[in-house]
Amino acid sequence: MSPTTKLTPKGAATRQRIIEGAAAEIRERGVAVTTLDDVRARTGTSKSQLFHYFPDGKDRLLLAVARYEADQVLAVQQPQLGGLTSWAAWRRWRDTVVSHYRGRGQHCPLNVLISQLGRVTPGAQAVVSEMLRRWQDEIAAGVRHLQGTGEIGPQLDAERGAAALLAGIQGGVVVMLSTGRIDHLEAALDVGIENLKASGNRA
Amino acid sequence: MSPTTKLTPKGAATRQRIIEGAAAEIRERGVAVTTLDDVRARTGTSKSQLFHYFPDGKDRLLLAVARYEADQVLAVQQPQLGGLTSWAAWRRWRDTVVSHYRGRGQHCPLNVLISQLGRVTPGAQAVVSEMLRRWQDEIAAGVRHLQGTGEIGPQLDAERGAAALLAGIQGGVVVMLSTGRIDHLEAALDVGIENLKASGNRA
Repeated sequence: MSPTTKLTPKGAATRQRIIEGAAAEIRERGVAVTTLDDVRARTGTSKSQLFHYFPDGKDRLLLAVARYEADQVLAVQQPQLGGLTSWAAWRRWRDTVVSHYRGRGQHCPLNVLISQLGRVTPGAQAVVSEMLRRWQDEIAAGVRHLQGTGEIGPQLDAERGAAALLAGIQGGVVVMLSTGRIDHLEAALDVGIENLKASGNRA
Repeated sequence: MSPTTKLTPKGAATRQRIIEGAAAEIRERGVAVTTLDDVRARTGTSKSQLFHYFPDGKDRLLLAVARYEADQVLAVQQPQLGGLTSWAAWRRWRDTVVSHYRGRGQHCPLNVLISQLGRVTPGAQAVVSEMLRRWQDEIAAGVRHLQGTGEIGPQLDAERGAAALLAGIQGGVVVMLSTGRIDHLEAALDVGIENLKASGNRA
């Protein structure tokens, strides 16, 4: 069943319960050992229900869980990410991102799922691409907002600036996952935001 | 046998031949299916030779291959990375990095090995940490050089600036591995270098 198929409200709720249960199971026990039976037991669903919502089996469920975890990546940054309308707001967003990843440590549920699905599979690529697109859109909207108020220079390419900052965040997170150190993430955010500010002073 | 154990020149050459043969085999066929027998066959080494240099088996060999691939990541950026002494040199380095990753596509041998070894294992972390340290040192040296010639502002924290640029590169590469798009890597490098330049104009 594709996510775009119309479900009754009850059906959508059941499907969501399966996805969230699978996500919790995978976070606790790891993706390799989590079976469909584990997910059924945790979510109180029958084999026929699971088959109804995920007829293609575990990989299709994992993809839905990856989409859910990608949504979580953005959700934990809200409402700050969606309201980058002052330098104080950018600062709060920066602190939210850093404290989220500091708290999570070297575990990233989305990264685990994408690795399991295969990074270059079309499904995994679509999930990551869509998440990055939405993330970049929010940052670019913040840049444009401060261009509107004159706090960021009008000459700055908002889309490219957002792409660069987003790359810095992704790299900072990857460095943290690989080394346990969070200072690259902090440097990427701090230097990136300072340079946006400086562009306003140059204008 | 640890890498620090003293080897005869011939022993060191044999060990290196095993590592490079394993790296080539893994690049061609993938880490999951490559066996020690494949490596022996490819490198013309006996079981006792392989055991002599890698008594702990495949994981220790994979770690040595990861270290070799990490060295390659830096080597392909040379001599440009080691000589960031003018804006033209920074530009050549930028082009080298982008063209390297564009040519490689969505395959990163080091990432494959680190995933296989387990990102949070001490050995894998040490390999990645050391590579990032050397990479950041080279970028920071370039920043300090241009601070010396007055082309980058003296107020700029070279280490933090290098960390931010390095994070942007890591993120740009990760985005490319996950989506096939290289524009985040380009944005991270271009925006990062432009901001270094702008700091000089502000000084």
